[in-house]
Amino acid sequence: MAEVFQDPTRPVGERVDDLLPRLTLREKVGQLNQRLFGWTAWRRTGGRIATTDALDEEAERWGGLGAVYGLLRADAWSGRDWTNGADPHLSREVAATVQERVVTASRFGIPALFVEEAPHGHQALGSQLFPTSLGAAAAWRPDLVERAAAHVAREVRARGAHVAMVSALDVLRDPRWGRSEECFGEDPLLAALCTRALVRGMHTEPGIAVVLKHLIGQGAAIGGRNSSGAPIGPRELSEVHLAAARAGVDAGALGVMAAYNDIDGVPCVAHERLLTGVLRDEWGFEGIVMADMFAVDRLMRVTESPAAAAALALRAGVDLSLCDVSYTALERAVTDGLVAESYVDRACRRVLALKVRLGLLDEPAPLPAFPPPDPVSELVASTAVLLRNRGDLLPLTVRPRRVAVIGPNADDVRCLLGDYVPPLPPGAGTTVFEAVRAIVGDAVTTPGCTHLDAIDGGRERAADLAADADLVVLVLGGTGVRDYDDDFEANGAARLGGARPAATTGEGFDAAEVELPPAQRELADAVVAAGTPVVAVIVSGRPHGIGHVADVCDAVIYAWYPGPAGAEAIAGLLLGDREPVGRLPVSLPRSSAVLPVVYNERLETTLRYVDAHAAAEFPFGAGIGYTTWSVGPARASHDTVTTAALPGLSLTTTLANTGPRRGTQIVQLYARALIPGLLPRRAVHCGFTRVTLDAGAAETVRVEVEPDALPALGLDARSAGTLDFWLSVTGAGEPVDPVRVTLLAVHPDVVDVVAVGR
Amino acid sequence: MAEVFQDPTRPVGERVDDLLPRLTLREKVGQLNQRLFGWTAWRRTGGRIATTDALDEEAERWGGLGAVYGLLRADAWSGRDWTNGADPHLSREVAATVQERVVTASRFGIPALFVEEAPHGHQALGSQLFPTSLGAAAAWRPDLVERAAAHVAREVRARGAHVAMVSALDVLRDPRWGRSEECFGEDPLLAALCTRALVRGMHTEPGIAVVLKHLIGQGAAIGGRNSSGAPIGPRELSEVHLAAARAGVDAGALGVMAAYNDIDGVPCVAHERLLTGVLRDEWGFEGIVMADMFAVDRLMRVTESPAAAAALALRAGVDLSLCDVSYTALERAVTDGLVAESYVDRACRRVLALKVRLGLLDEPAPLPAFPPPDPVSELVASTAVLLRNRGDLLPLTVRPRRVAVIGPNADDVRCLLGDYVPPLPPGAGTTVFEAVRAIVGDAVTTPGCTHLDAIDGGRERAADLAADADLVVLVLGGTGVRDYDDDFEANGAARLGGARPAATTGEGFDAAEVELPPAQRELADAVVAAGTPVVAVIVSGRPHGIGHVADVCDAVIYAWYPGPAGAEAIAGLLLGDREPVGRLPVSLPRSSAVLPVVYNERLETTLRYVDAHAAAEFPFGAGIGYTTWSVGPARASHDTVTTAALPGLSLTTTLANTGPRRGTQIVQLYARALIPGLLPRRAVHCGFTRVTLDAGAAETVRVEVEPDALPALGLDARSAGTLDFWLSVTGAGEPVDPVRVTLLAVHPDVVDVVAVGR
Repeated sequence: MAEVFQDPTRPVGERVDDLLPRLTLREKVGQLNQRLFGWTAWRRTGGRIATTDALDEEAERWGGLGAVYGLLRADAWSGRDWTNGADPHLSREVAATVQERVVTASRFGIPALFVEEAPHGHQALGSQLFPTSLGAAAAWRPDLVERAAAHVAREVRARGAHVAMVSALDVLRDPRWGRSEECFGEDPLLAALCTRALVRGMHTEPGIAVVLKHLIGQGAAIGGRNSSGAPIGPRELSEVHLAAARAGVDAGALGVMAAYNDIDGVPCVAHERLLTGVLRDEWGFEGIVMADMFAVDRLMRVTESPAAAAALALRAGVDLSLCDVSYTALERAVTDGLVAESYVDRACRRVLALKVRLGLLDEPAPLPAFPPPDPVSELVASTAVLLRNRGDLLPLTVRPRRVAVIGPNADDVRCLLGDYVPPLPPGAGTTVFEAVRAIVGDAVTTPGCTHLDAIDGGRERAADLAADADLVVLVLGGTGVRDYDDDFEANGAARLGGARPAATTGEGFDAAEVELPPAQRELADAVVAAGTPVVAVIVSGRPHGIGHVADVCDAVIYAWYPGPAGAEAIAGLLLGDREPVGRLPVSLPRSSAVLPVVYNERLETTLRYVDAHAAAEFPFGAGIGYTTWSVGPARASHDTVTTAALPGLSLTTTLANTGPRRGTQIVQLYARALIPGLLPRRAVHCGFTRVTLDAGAAETVRVEVEPDALPALGLDARSAGTLDFWLSVTGAGEPVDPVRVTLLAVHPDVVDVVAVGR
Repeated sequence: MAEVFQDPTRPVGERVDDLLPRLTLREKVGQLNQRLFGWTAWRRTGGRIATTDALDEEAERWGGLGAVYGLLRADAWSGRDWTNGADPHLSREVAATVQERVVTASRFGIPALFVEEAPHGHQALGSQLFPTSLGAAAAWRPDLVERAAAHVAREVRARGAHVAMVSALDVLRDPRWGRSEECFGEDPLLAALCTRALVRGMHTEPGIAVVLKHLIGQGAAIGGRNSSGAPIGPRELSEVHLAAARAGVDAGALGVMAAYNDIDGVPCVAHERLLTGVLRDEWGFEGIVMADMFAVDRLMRVTESPAAAAALALRAGVDLSLCDVSYTALERAVTDGLVAESYVDRACRRVLALKVRLGLLDEPAPLPAFPPPDPVSELVASTAVLLRNRGDLLPLTVRPRRVAVIGPNADDVRCLLGDYVPPLPPGAGTTVFEAVRAIVGDAVTTPGCTHLDAIDGGRERAADLAADADLVVLVLGGTGVRDYDDDFEANGAARLGGARPAATTGEGFDAAEVELPPAQRELADAVVAAGTPVVAVIVSGRPHGIGHVADVCDAVIYAWYPGPAGAEAIAGLLLGDREPVGRLPVSLPRSSAVLPVVYNERLETTLRYVDAHAAAEFPFGAGIGYTTWSVGPARASHDTVTTAALPGLSLTTTLANTGPRRGTQIVQLYARALIPGLLPRRAVHCGFTRVTLDAGAAETVRVEVEPDALPALGLDARSAGTLDFWLSVTGAGEPVDPVRVTLLAVHPDVVDVVAVGR
């Protein structure tokens, strides 16, 4: 007869309670460790998979393992590629073989969690890759984020892994950050909606848990410098950074990752108030908290002893480490009296509960089949944001005779992918040049410059091609491409130092200047001078200053990193097969000198510098399509409201498609909260409604306040004042004809905070 | 017989208690108002001073007046100049005439406080002007700040005014801010020491109270944009921003000004926790809190009703408004029940107590005589920081035959002054060109470019002059010059908009790019190309990126705004009459793209961008003189210490002057606190010792931890861990051979915060 902990008919808690007391301290500490780089746990030998000494030693040391990270990871850092890595089929064998070794080492046959990177597709050979988070957010389509996530989850599970790590929680406040592409933008609401959808999608696969990266505030790191601190206050933290995490937890996320950064001095992995107070006591989170890679070890900058660092993180609420050496010292920490064993039990209980929930302690069930490819084309096509379209150049009314596809991103499929991706299968994917050529037949290409530098004669060759074409597609931006001979930090981030790597975005690739580099601006000038119409396509993971390019080119499309199917989608937009429907998920600054330019800073007295405007060049929410629109006056569903009742409030207006073709519009609802004693944010995005209308049609549109928007408004039950609401189809900005709603406190005796001194 | 409130033998409280209950609500509200622009209260007519209708109306309205701002202010905004303003002699008549009118209007003969701007000299005609705060801080000479302040106080009192407003509390965290020059730099300790000295100096004059500007955090305003919010946390606030204010209060400051900015959403003028909790309850402050100009009115952005805005500020702890219209609505606020009359009484008690303390309710005593001019030459000469000196060009060993003094600041005395200054007397002051010519005889000058733009042929003329000279002094930087036809905001800040004003620094002149403008860099290139040795002198109120100039010129002196006597001091440095002894009070960044670069950010994982280093180009504390030094190993006075005992700790080393001439060195003490659970600041400046040694001499130097350094270390009585201390004569940076000291908690049961879970 099976043990209680193996009995799937028993409640999770009961099963864990049965197992936990039987484990030794060492076995429990083993469950909290995830030290191995998974790709070092196995090798291909004679067509079969064998485990390594490294795995043997680690599994024997702990009598099993808590988790194994990156078993299937394939990229330049892991060194796994199509010659030595695991395709979908082989992945199952890798997982089974490694798991068998772990189970054998465990007195109770406890399997390890297999934890994989899957921020926009699984970082494993042969996986489906999607737009990075920032691009996905630009679609303003949480439903499609959900669909893509469900596909990723199915793939990950089909290979035999259990936990998918996905970037979602970082709110992008400084575009210099190399990891900008991993954020769902600068807006707490859009990030929350996308995170909620992501968790839903991931959890459609019963055997999969998602770990949301990162808790919290890394998007506000000073100077946009990776993993630097966020010296922000509790109100800024709560209003800007916590909404996405809260939404993810509410949606049932089973894991969050504690971030590298500190918040006002306290590192997130040592932040008991955050990891235990907010996350568990206030929000009721019941999953696991994983530390970011080597983040616990970084506490040794202060504590010096690995045991003390581990004790600090464990006490704060870190359950599972990631690669840290210090977490292996938890046994020592307990025996030395640095932390009570009850904290080890607390964490181990959570790890075991997750294993129970995911079925690891049940009889093994067959894995689902690896799903057929699904690029979620609608998501890919919806990420592109059209920002300029002079003289309605787009969509092209006449198929061009010859197109010159120019620029450093013109003919490189890898530049479409972003960070945290595996090598594509040989020959897979389509470059922008190839996609355009497939449509128009006659196309030519030249890079013109590199991402950062001019090429000898590059501008001249580009100008020549432009002059001889009747359309130029100028593909500029950045690249996250990693070479297998790049240097890496211990945590896989790119190491800057020696030879300059090819990439300009991604983890480790923070940039001081976010304006497009001079070499690219000069290329634009040279190409434009040829006199041929120019469509600029910005392919990048970072918000760039694109003002100069927007000034000189006829049309500008911001395409982010759309994934390997992105080029075909872009080519389709040019000819009007589809309309661009994306909207900016982040404000675009003119240059780094005017940062920050996020749309929802608090009111400022001046947005002028002596030498520049401080306003965004293109604000959050901006983007146009191929038709025109009119928006009628708005009215609110209520004249008065309480904070608790706010999500019941909506604004209604009449939207009309006044242009020549069917089109889609995103009607955005913004608010400014006027609460005595608090300086309001310029605007707070509260909700949006997507509407598709035929040419000439009109429709009544209602936009509701989303519950996920409440944190950004900074209200509580005692808040009283007024709320100005307005609708926009051009993005964030100053209120336009706002509708004023009275906000009543829930408790009548504190209706007016000004009156307390009465 | 005199009333109790008039009896100077009685305690202050008793006198106020006698007077306050006799005042009507209106009279009390009148004491809290400072609405008039003082320069509109009087006019010169037929050689005599007359009061205006504006004064009559205001005094009659309230039955007296709380305070009058800027009675003697002379500048472009007030429109007062040498043709229509008040020189020192006339000032006494102005003060007496206006006071007589106020006293007459008051049933109890209560005079008004006359409040004047005096940030680096009194902003009145004929006053002595000193270096701006940032320049004064560069001298690292609080004793000289004290001496200058004492002179200013004597002048202000001699003219019949009572309150001097001085910028001191803003800590410079973003050099884009136009008011950078008003800060004592980026370091909490240096700011605290200078503020303490300033208050001591001001209060040597018994009839003078200082109002310290601004409480608090405006130096951290986002984007360096004037009066924008500081979304910082409590630890950042306490460790970086509060130390100077605390020092000023401890030194007996009788006034502080509540700042424009919000802290994490709460405007300072509505911040009860700050103005009452911290300032009064924790620190024991007994003076007045004045709001910044129109800052209470700005609360109407949220409250809409003037009475509600006033009630909010009054409740929070604002005692005296500055020009706000809303504060006149306090009567209404009380009668409408928005705030209790007890709050009016509280504020009025403080204003009356200040008047009693300053002797306004005593029999008028004769004013002191206006003091003779005293530029405090040692302060002026000590502000200059030598940053480069290739081939020991300086001091010049041979008097040059001809010197070309080139640059936009070469021959303009007004560019030496900074913001908040009166017009100089006709013919007063010396330009750099004039000062150099006075020494070498043969000197020529040309601007070469404007502060921001090239001049047609300017570079060529400059290069020609350079080629024909045997030394070039290249005077670059910024300017705070205000023209009498500039536009101004309601609060006197420059208004940007129409025609570009001449200034590039000062209130309202925030700059996006802090690197010296291209026009100035190109001028440097052109001049250097002439082959003559070039000494660059940077005259500006802002930390600039000067890397290019430092790369191409032979020597670089950062001179700040040294005041009208500054040019002579600079000229004296060139010839070695004095040695440059200043040290940077703020880090110099390469450009705005890498901000922030302050020396005491918390530890970061990377200081590299893809395209730039994030480190300061010249760090806080940097600066060289005309000799060389060696510093021996350091030892600490204690191996263990508690937080409370930290100011008893010192480091000792042997300092030797290894160079060719007598010189002065500033030995700086830095610490890094290693406290489990907190990310340390890279370095915290804890104290310094100034040493002057003959060539070849050596001396034992002791540097003590200053009490004012404790806030920045972020320790409390329960803090335990280790402290690394080190000495530096090259400025802030990574620890070099640190001495490790054990920090013990005061309470043995919390010796180790990690062990709490035991």
